[in-house]
Amino acid sequence: MELDAGWIAGFVDGEGCFHVGIARHDDMKTGYQVLPEFTIVQHERDAQLLYAIKRHFGCGVVRRDHGDRLAFRVRDRRHLAERIVPFFVQHRLLSKRRADFEKFRRVLELMESGRHLTEDGVDEIRRIAGQMNRGASR
Amino acid sequence: MELDAGWIAGFVDGEGCFHVGIARHDDMKTGYQVLPEFTIVQHERDAQLLYAIKRHFGCGVVRRDHGDRLAFRVRDRRHLAERIVPFFVQHRLLSKRRADFEKFRRVLELMESGRHLTEDGVDEIRRIAGQMNRGASR
Repeated sequence: MELDAGWIAGFVDGEGCFHVGIARHDDMKTGYQVLPEFTIVQHERDAQLLYAIKRHFGCGVVRRDHGDRLAFRVRDRRHLAERIVPFFVQHRLLSKRRADFEKFRRVLELMESGRHLTEDGVDEIRRIAGQMNRGASR
Repeated sequence: MELDAGWIAGFVDGEGCFHVGIARHDDMKTGYQVLPEFTIVQHERDAQLLYAIKRHFGCGVVRRDHGDRLAFRVRDRRHLAERIVPFFVQHRLLSKRRADFEKFRRVLELMESGRHLTEDGVDEIRRIAGQMNRGASR
């Protein structure tokens, strides 16, 4: 199955999720690890769609989420910065999810400049992450 | 906001619903009325998206659904047969929702030939409608 870029943008406007997790991690100097991730969760009947999306982006994994759901998930920071973000810069999201994407992109930029390795940076990222996924359209 | 056809197909693959209702209606000879409808429900924050979709199709209405949700809804049989169905024949859905669309299209064809005005026809439509929206992806 070949996917059209416009179709992907529309599908992600409905079904995608840009998330930034902040987890305790004692090995980090700041005590915290920043974990950005892009996911699309679907019923297992649409497994082939998730695999087609994975092929399109050339990164990520498809794994069982819970119950009869599968998730396409990208966590690798390089892949997020070099494949996922540029795609949605070029193929603009139109729903309110776009605001989440812009915050997600901002967090990745902060990470590029190493800000997530400082306490101030983690605070800033936490503030941004706290404003994400609040207007979830479900 | 101008919408790309590919975007609409992707968005409807995630968020659209093709439904066929069958309601008691004593004025009908069969005792039943067949009510096909196409809907997209979104949080009210994305009202402008629903209005852009309405403009794109040139039919339907945007109304409050329940709580903070709005629905774009097309019920007019002419509009369904002449605008909605041809769009998704041209811009194929890729998720399992496509199977619902094909059944929806079949019901509209039966209605075109007046089958919904016969008891046999209502039975056939009821059988098709009973197989729809069972693999809903949420």
